[in-house]
Amino acid sequence: MAVVVQTITRAPQAVIDGLAAAGVATVHEAQGRRGMLASNMRPIYTGAQIAGSAVTISAPPGDNWMVHVAIEQLKEGDILVLAPTSPCDNGYFGDLLATSAMARGCRGLIIDAGVRDVRDLTAMRFPVWSKAVSAQGTVKETVGSVNVPVVCAGAYIEAGDVIVADDDGVCVVRQAEAVAVLAAAEKRLANEEAKRKRLAAGELGLDIYDMRPALAAKGLKYV
Amino acid sequence: MAVVVQTITRAPQAVIDGLAAAGVATVHEAQGRRGMLASNMRPIYTGAQIAGSAVTISAPPGDNWMVHVAIEQLKEGDILVLAPTSPCDNGYFGDLLATSAMARGCRGLIIDAGVRDVRDLTAMRFPVWSKAVSAQGTVKETVGSVNVPVVCAGAYIEAGDVIVADDDGVCVVRQAEAVAVLAAAEKRLANEEAKRKRLAAGELGLDIYDMRPALAAKGLKYV
Amino acid sequence: MAVVVQTITRAPQAVIDGLAAAGVATVHEAQGRRGMLASNMRPIYTGAQIAGSAVTISAPPGDNWMVHVAIEQLKEGDILVLAPTSPCDNGYFGDLLATSAMARGCRGLIIDAGVRDVRDLTAMRFPVWSKAVSAQGTVKETVGSVNVPVVCAGAYIEAGDVIVADDDGVCVVRQAEAVAVLAAAEKRLANEEAKRKRLAAGELGLDIYDMRPALAAKGLKYV
Amino acid sequence: MAVVVQTITRAPQAVIDGLAAAGVATVHEAQGRRGMLASNMRPIYTGAQIAGSAVTISAPPGDNWMVHVAIEQLKEGDILVLAPTSPCDNGYFGDLLATSAMARGCRGLIIDAGVRDVRDLTAMRFPVWSKAVSAQGTVKETVGSVNVPVVCAGAYIEAGDVIVADDDGVCVVRQAEAVAVLAAAEKRLANEEAKRKRLAAGELGLDIYDMRPALAAKGLKYV
Amino acid sequence: MAVVVQTITRAPQAVIDGLAAAGVATVHEAQGRRGMLASNMRPIYTGAQIAGSAVTISAPPGDNWMVHVAIEQLKEGDILVLAPTSPCDNGYFGDLLATSAMARGCRGLIIDAGVRDVRDLTAMRFPVWSKAVSAQGTVKETVGSVNVPVVCAGAYIEAGDVIVADDDGVCVVRQAEAVAVLAAAEKRLANEEAKRKRLAAGELGLDIYDMRPALAAKGLKYV
Amino acid sequence: MAVVVQTITRAPQAVIDGLAAAGVATVHEAQGRRGMLASNMRPIYTGAQIAGSAVTISAPPGDNWMVHVAIEQLKEGDILVLAPTSPCDNGYFGDLLATSAMARGCRGLIIDAGVRDVRDLTAMRFPVWSKAVSAQGTVKETVGSVNVPVVCAGAYIEAGDVIVADDDGVCVVRQAEAVAVLAAAEKRLANEEAKRKRLAAGELGLDIYDMRPALAAKGLKYV
Repeated sequence: MAVVVQTITRAPQAVIDGLAAAGVATVHEAQGRRGMLASNMRPIYTGAQIAGSAVTISAPPGDNWMVHVAIEQLKEGDILVLAPTSPCDNGYFGDLLATSAMARGCRGLIIDAGVRDVRDLTAMRFPVWSKAVSAQGTVKETVGSVNVPVVCAGAYIEAGDVIVADDDGVCVVRQAEAVAVLAAAEKRLANEEAKRKRLAAGELGLDIYDMRPALAAKGLKYV
Repeated sequence: MAVVVQTITRAPQAVIDGLAAAGVATVHEAQGRRGMLASNMRPIYTGAQIAGSAVTISAPPGDNWMVHVAIEQLKEGDILVLAPTSPCDNGYFGDLLATSAMARGCRGLIIDAGVRDVRDLTAMRFPVWSKAVSAQGTVKETVGSVNVPVVCAGAYIEAGDVIVADDDGVCVVRQAEAVAVLAAAEKRLANEEAKRKRLAAGELGLDIYDMRPALAAKGLKYV
Repeated sequence: MAVVVQTITRAPQAVIDGLAAAGVATVHEAQGRRGMLASNMRPIYTGAQIAGSAVTISAPPGDNWMVHVAIEQLKEGDILVLAPTSPCDNGYFGDLLATSAMARGCRGLIIDAGVRDVRDLTAMRFPVWSKAVSAQGTVKETVGSVNVPVVCAGAYIEAGDVIVADDDGVCVVRQAEAVAVLAAAEKRLANEEAKRKRLAAGELGLDIYDMRPALAAKGLKYV
Repeated sequence: MAVVVQTITRAPQAVIDGLAAAGVATVHEAQGRRGMLASNMRPIYTGAQIAGSAVTISAPPGDNWMVHVAIEQLKEGDILVLAPTSPCDNGYFGDLLATSAMARGCRGLIIDAGVRDVRDLTAMRFPVWSKAVSAQGTVKETVGSVNVPVVCAGAYIEAGDVIVADDDGVCVVRQAEAVAVLAAAEKRLANEEAKRKRLAAGELGLDIYDMRPALAAKGLKYV
Repeated sequence: MAVVVQTITRAPQAVIDGLAAAGVATVHEAQGRRGMLASNMRPIYTGAQIAGSAVTISAPPGDNWMVHVAIEQLKEGDILVLAPTSPCDNGYFGDLLATSAMARGCRGLIIDAGVRDVRDLTAMRFPVWSKAVSAQGTVKETVGSVNVPVVCAGAYIEAGDVIVADDDGVCVVRQAEAVAVLAAAEKRLANEEAKRKRLAAGELGLDIYDMRPALAAKGLKYV
Repeated sequence: MAVVVQTITRAPQAVIDGLAAAGVATVHEAQGRRGMLASNMRPIYTGAQIAGSAVTISAPPGDNWMVHVAIEQLKEGDILVLAPTSPCDNGYFGDLLATSAMARGCRGLIIDAGVRDVRDLTAMRFPVWSKAVSAQGTVKETVGSVNVPVVCAGAYIEAGDVIVADDDGVCVVRQAEAVAVLAAAEKRLANEEAKRKRLAAGELGLDIYDMRPALAAKGLKYV
C-alpha cells in the first residue's frame, strides 16, 4: 500500500495565481467557509502569500524518507503537503530538502508536524506552514505514499488540489472547483472594496447590512 | 437575555494613558498580581502597548453578529473585548471590522478566539491579542450581549474596566481601582529604576533585597 | 534538600563557541538525534544563536526566589536553565533579573515556564527560550535548588552541560561529550556543504543517497 | 488583599436540592445556556449528582494553605470551589482534607487544578470535579482569599452561588436567580418527559418541533 | 451547499458484524494500520464494542440542528458520525436525541465534539465516543449537511463507510474494502491465538519472530 | 548508541512491596515532593496499586521493536517503563506483549505514549499507566535502547529505580534511596492516622497545625 502516484491533474496556473492574490480569508469565504486547515498551522515567517498544486506525502511518524521521493514528483509551482500517519512534531524538513525542492520549482511546504533550520529557510524565502518548529531529526526506515489523498491538519487534500496559504493560515480548494472559487473570490473582493470605504467613513455595518430589524426580531434589547 | 448596555462608566483618559505607559507587567504587580488574562492570548504583531476602556461582547461560538452591534457602542479610546460562550478559534474579526472600529476610535481588540486578515491589521496598526489566528469564517444567526460582564481568557471583565495590553499579554484593571493602581504603578516604576542601576553595576538581588538570612532560615544549604 | 551546588565543571569555552556556531539542528544530529528539549520552547525573538554552560534552577511553581540565588553562581558565558517542579506558565523572569544576569556574563535563559518584559529583553538582546510569555508574577516564599540535575522541557540537564539554542529550539550536550560532539558536528557541516551544491543543481536526494533500491526493497510502488 | 469573608448569603436548601435533582444539563438550559465550567472539569468517579452553596478559595499555584482556612467557613451542604491564581495541576486536596470537610458537612469539591488520594475519596464517596488527578504535593507559604469572587474553569463564581455538578460537568447558578432557575428547570423536565415518549415511539424531532419549513427556508436540499 | 444525501451504500450486515467482533485494534492492523480516529475520542463508558454504517453529519460549531435531520436518514444498524466545521466541545447530543436515534435502530454516536446526559446514555446503553463530555447546549440556527464526506477527528469518512469502535478508540473502514478487511482481520485473529499460547508459555517474541539477526544488523549492542 | 544493558541493580523486594503498600501520594511526600510523572499519565483501570523495579525502554516514535528486547530483560516483579524519543500517542503495547511480559513476571507498564487492547489488559489485570489509549499500530524498523536512563513523562528514571503507581499517578524513587524513603513513608502514614481521627471528629487543621498565628503574620484578614 506504499505507492507513488506519478500523474496528477493540476489547476491552470493563472487560476492558481489568482487564488494566491486573493488570499486565504477571501478564498475560504468564496467557497462557502470550507477548506481551512487547523489554526495551529502557522507560518515560519510573516508576509508570504502563496498558492500551488498539492503534492501530498503520507509519512510515518518520525520518518522523512518519503520527502525525498516526493521531491522528484514536483513540478514548477507545486506545494509539498505532508501529513504524518499519527501525531508527530519532529522536524521532517530543513534547509537541504528546501534547497532540493526549490531547485524543482516548489513554492512552499505545508506540514502537520515540525520543521527545522527555520533561520536558513527564512533567508532562502522558502515558506513553511507547520504545527511546530523542532530540530528533532527523523529516520529513513519506513515507506509511505506520495500523491494519495491525505488528511492534513483536519482537512482532506488530494494531489493536485490548490493550496492557498498566507499569514491567516492554510486553505485547500478542490482542483475541479478552482475556477469557480476564483470567480467567487474576485467578486467578493470587488464588493469588499466598496464596503471598506463606507466603513472607513464611519457608517456602521448595522446600517450597511440592514441588521437592525433582524436583531430586534431575534430578541436583542437595548438597555 | 440578549442585551446591549448602552451606558458604561469609563476611567479618566489620563489614567488610562498612564496605565498604557506603565505596561502590563508593572500594572499587574501594582494591583497585587491580579488581573492577567491567560498566557495564550498573544499579540498579532510585537511592539503595541495600549490601554482603553472595555466594550465587552458575549458571542456564541462561530457567530460574529454582535461585533457589529458592539462597534456602535465604541467611544474614542475604547477596546473591544470578545468572549465566546464556549471555546472557539474561528476568525471573528478581520480588516473590514477593524476599519469600522478604527473609524469609531477603537484602539484594539482582545478576543478569546481567532482573528483573521492579520497582515492587513498589522499594516493598519490595529493591534489584536487573540488565542488563535484563523481565516475560518463565522455566521450571523444568533444574538449575544454587549457590555455585560464576561469571562475572557480566564479573567472577569466588566464594561468600562481598563484593559492594558502589550507584548507580555493582557491585564484588566477594575474601573473603580484605576486611579489607585496607576499611583501604585508609578511608584513601582520609580523604585525599579534605582534597582536597575545597582543590578547593572553587578550588585546581587540577594544583597539588595537582603535575602540571605531568610534563605538560610528556610533551610537552603550551600555545598 | 534545598541546596546550591557552588562548583560545577564546564566544557572549554572554545568548544562551547564551536557548538554555538554549529547550531541546534546540526549538534542534535551529531550526537545521534538526542538532547532536544520539547518543541514548545520558543525564542522570544528570532535570530539569536547561543551556547553556554548550564546553571540549573529547580524552582517551585510560581516562585522565583531561586533565580536570585542562581545569578550569584553565574560565570561569564553561562546560561540559566529553570525547571519548575510542576507545570507553571508564570513569568518568573523579567528585565531586572536580566540586567543582573547580564552583569554576571549570562548569555541567555532557558525556562520551562513563562517570561515577561519581553519587549525590554528584546531591546537588551537577552535571549530567552520559554514555553510561555506571561506577566503573571511570582512570589519568593519557598526554596528550591541550584545546580542540581533537572528535567527541563523533557530533557535531563546537569549543571555544566552545554546548552545550544537558536530558532530551531534548544538542545543539551553532556559536558563530558562536548568535545566529541563538536568534532562530529563540524564533520557533518563540511559534508552538508557538498550536498547542498548538488541539490541546488537539481540532483535528487534519491540519487545522491542511492535510495531507489532500498525503497523498492521495502515495497514502494510507482503507479 | 488576602481576606476571608465570613458571612455569605446562601440559597434556600430546598431550592439547592431541587437543582441537584434536575441535574446539570437541565439547569444549564433552564438559565439560558449559561454557567457551564470548562469541559475539562471531570468527576473522579461517575454517578455523583450534587448541588450546594459555593465556598470559594483563591489560592496561589502549588499552595493549599487556604483550603484549611476555607474549611472553617463551611456550613452543612456547602461545596468548596478552588481556583488557582494561575494554571496549576498540583494535588491540592486529599483524603485528610476530605475527612475534615465532610466533618463540616461539605458535599464536594470543584477544583480547577489537581486532586489526589482519589481511591480513598471514592471509597469515602466525597465527589470531586477537577482538571487533573495528581499526587504532586503543595506548600503552605502564601496566603490567598476565601469567599471572594473567583473565575474557576472559565466561569465567574461568587460565594453563595449554587454549584450543580454531575457526570456532565459543573454549572453555576447565581444565588439570587436560584429560585427562578429551579422553576424553569422543573418546567423543562415536565416538557421533556412528553417528548421522550413520542421520540421513543419513533416520531421524529423534525416533525415534533415542526422543523421542516425552517430548514427549507434556510436552503437545505435533499438529494 | 447544505444537502442531505438520502441514498447511501452500506456494507453487508454480516461483514459489519464480523468487523465488530474483530475489534478496533485488529481491524486497524488488518487494513495496513490505517483508519484510526484521533486518540482523544474516548467512550463514555467502557465495554461497548460496535460496528455500523456511517451516517455523517457536518455541523457548524455549537449548532445541533442537523442531528435531527440525520436521524431521519438512519437505518437499523447505522452509526451517527458528527464532525463540526471548526473545533467545538459543546454537548450536541443528549438523552432525547439518543431515544430518537435508538428508535430508528442506531447503534451509537461518534462525535468530534461534546456529548451530555452521559449518565442517562450509559443507563440506556447507547454508546458514544467523543472528545468531550459537556452539558453546554447548542442552538438550531444554521444548516449543515448529512451524508457528505467529513473529516472527523482526523479521519476522512464517507457515508456508508464502516465504523468500528471499542475501548481502544474508533476506526473507519471504506465501504468497498469491508469484505477484504474482514477476511484479513479473521486471518490475523487466528494467527494471534497461536502466538498468544507460545508467549504465555514463556517463549520470547525475539525468538518467535526471529528478530535477533535483524537487531544485530541494525547495530543493537548488548552490554 | 543502541544498547541493551543487561545488569541492573534492584532495590530489595520487601522495600518495593512496602512502597507499593504506602501508595503514590505518601511516597511522593516522603521523599520531599519529588519524583511525580506528569499528571496526564492515567491508569487504564482504577484500583491497581503497584511497585516494581524499572526496566527502561527508549524507543523511536511509532516503533515498538525494543519492547520485545526489553521483555527478555525482565525479572519477577519488574515494571516496564517506555519513553519515546519524541512525542507520540501510538499504541505500542497490547495483549500479546502483555501476555509475554506477564509470563516473565512483569507487574505493569508505564508508557509516555499509547496502549491498546485495554479491554483485554483489564481482563488480564495487567495495569498500564499511559498518556493515551490508541489502537494506532507501530512498526519494527529502528532500534533504541533498554535499561539506559530515560526521561518519561517529565521524570528522570534509571533502570532499577523503583516505580510506584496507583490511581493518583506514577512516582519514581531512586534505587539507592528506596530504603530511606520507605522509612519516611511509614512514619508519615502513622502520623496521618492520628490526624485523620481528629479531623473526622470536627477539629480543624487550622488548630491541629496551629496555623492561625502564621496566617495573621502573613496578613490574612477576616471580614
